[in-house]
Amino acid sequence: MLVTLKQIAEELGISITTVSKALKEYPDVSKKTRKLVRETASMLNYKPNSFAVNLRTKESKTIGLIIPEIVHHFFSSVIKGIISQAEKKGYLVITLQSNESYELEKKQIDLLLSKRVDGILISLANGTGDFKHITEVIEQETPIVMFDKIAKTVKCSKVIIDDRKAAYKATQHLINIGCKRIAHFRGPLLPQNSIDRFLGYKQALIDNNLSYDASLVYLLNDMSFEEGKFYANQLLKDHKDVDGIFINTDLVAIGAISEFNKKGIKVPEQINVIGFSNWFMASVISPSLTTVNQPGFQMGKKAFKILYKEIKDRKKRKNISYNEVILETDLIFRDSTNN
Amino acid sequence: MLVTLKQIAEELGISITTVSKALKEYPDVSKKTRKLVRETASMLNYKPNSFAVNLRTKESKTIGLIIPEIVHHFFSSVIKGIISQAEKKGYLVITLQSNESYELEKKQIDLLLSKRVDGILISLANGTGDFKHITEVIEQETPIVMFDKIAKTVKCSKVIIDDRKAAYKATQHLINIGCKRIAHFRGPLLPQNSIDRFLGYKQALIDNNLSYDASLVYLLNDMSFEEGKFYANQLLKDHKDVDGIFINTDLVAIGAISEFNKKGIKVPEQINVIGFSNWFMASVISPSLTTVNQPGFQMGKKAFKILYKEIKDRKKRKNISYNEVILETDLIFRDSTNN
Repeated sequence: MLVTLKQIAEELGISITTVSKALKEYPDVSKKTRKLVRETASMLNYKPNSFAVNLRTKESKTIGLIIPEIVHHFFSSVIKGIISQAEKKGYLVITLQSNESYELEKKQIDLLLSKRVDGILISLANGTGDFKHITEVIEQETPIVMFDKIAKTVKCSKVIIDDRKAAYKATQHLINIGCKRIAHFRGPLLPQNSIDRFLGYKQALIDNNLSYDASLVYLLNDMSFEEGKFYANQLLKDHKDVDGIFINTDLVAIGAISEFNKKGIKVPEQINVIGFSNWFMASVISPSLTTVNQPGFQMGKKAFKILYKEIKDRKKRKNISYNEVILETDLIFRDSTNN
Repeated sequence: MLVTLKQIAEELGISITTVSKALKEYPDVSKKTRKLVRETASMLNYKPNSFAVNLRTKESKTIGLIIPEIVHHFFSSVIKGIISQAEKKGYLVITLQSNESYELEKKQIDLLLSKRVDGILISLANGTGDFKHITEVIEQETPIVMFDKIAKTVKCSKVIIDDRKAAYKATQHLINIGCKRIAHFRGPLLPQNSIDRFLGYKQALIDNNLSYDASLVYLLNDMSFEEGKFYANQLLKDHKDVDGIFINTDLVAIGAISEFNKKGIKVPEQINVIGFSNWFMASVISPSLTTVNQPGFQMGKKAFKILYKEIKDRKKRKNISYNEVILETDLIFRDSTNN
């Protein structure tokens, strides 16, 4: 769009700002100039991207949300939190699903910007290792808040939990109840939260003088129920001495427990299992799952609140100060660990 | 908006159509007239509602989606189906959650219309018993497609499953395997799908010469896991002779099974249980749940496809013919019934 505004400006020998103001019918541009700009714009076939731009307020009252996967209890809780808060402030939410794909995520960022959303909320795809598309949003002064799966190196507001601390506490609990050989089913390599959960697990082992054994760490890909079953089975083959597992997410943990049940491995008598997220199904399966409570709804609400403040501050031309909010997690003790 | 266009037209003594065309820079209106109209519009402080209206196409390429509850496996699958299909066609989806509230749903319809979405997809709130807000959308010629929870009396396109038939088949299966006293946990009174599932259940009893006993039908409210537990417990108190239950939705059925497990009631030996939706957890719990497979993702895709066609047809000024698509369901046999 800037290119075309620039063309009009060059055609008329006036500044881009004046062109922009004239097109928005700002009274501080003379009627004559406004008319000239309109006519030139029309002549040059200038098409303002009017979607999502309310001429009066320059706000679209719409935000974009990019989420890796909708059919996922944690993320759908986040979406619900975002939408509930947005509704209170009169904002609409355009939801896009990146399918954990970096390419798709990039396209969706461009699409949202072209639609002139007032701000963007994003949880990064597992495939995202380059953050140029995010920094571009920031450079274009569109407020953006990352949540859950974030890029530590990008300067913007973030709402996260302390994954490393939460994982440390979970692993520490396994050690406290007597586990000596603790496996970890970790998430994919890139997302910060799976790195942090892994590091928390590792640190707890080291701090307790338990040797870290890389062969006890299983790298999962799609974090599905089926993967939980598959790696539980693999673990039984590889390591007969394992007495505890800390698993990156509840769905996988539930898959693992289901496989242990099937194979006649007693949880927690033979293997203690701790999950992550506190999906409500964690309390329902048998044995019920000890897990880290990850506050999705609250995370969604908080992310919107911060974005809203940035949108308002930007409008008032205030300086934006970035917020990094770390929500509290706690360990929920249930029957999958011998507490 | 028409009022203001009319004012411009009266001011200039030209037709509203010409005014409208002029404002959209249609080349079949002379440059002079276009200029005159623009200036008059500006003088009269005419504010086009530009949000969501792309000047070139008169399309916003945005649709609205109203869904009763996001954190729900079936609905999040539908959302995913809608968004995946919308993405292919270059449409964005604004998602709103009605929280099963009629009042909120009405407001959301107004909001979406005011934002000039190209079309609306809706699954009605349980609280919705009056459909004036829906017929108004149709009268305003904004395409709308209902899915899952629909209003039978409203004339528009719909994507549903045959709830009555599916419930009939589920109940018939209970009868086939020898159940004589079959209870039903039904959904709230208003939504068509809970009415239809109840009617299918009742018809199957009658067709098999089993007497219909109203006291065996439990009216649920929020359809939660907790309600499943509560009514399972209630059923055990009220009717010691029940040997089968057909339950409106899997989450409730899983709650009921969990309560039976807790109380030492053997499923399926003492009570056969059939759910509805085929939530993936249905295959995970113990015993795994026999259930009706409800194709959420497919329903979302189909609903968008129909809406898309209506949007295109409307644009070409073609007559819209309403579609009622009934997706196939099937009964998935698992361990909660003595098949």
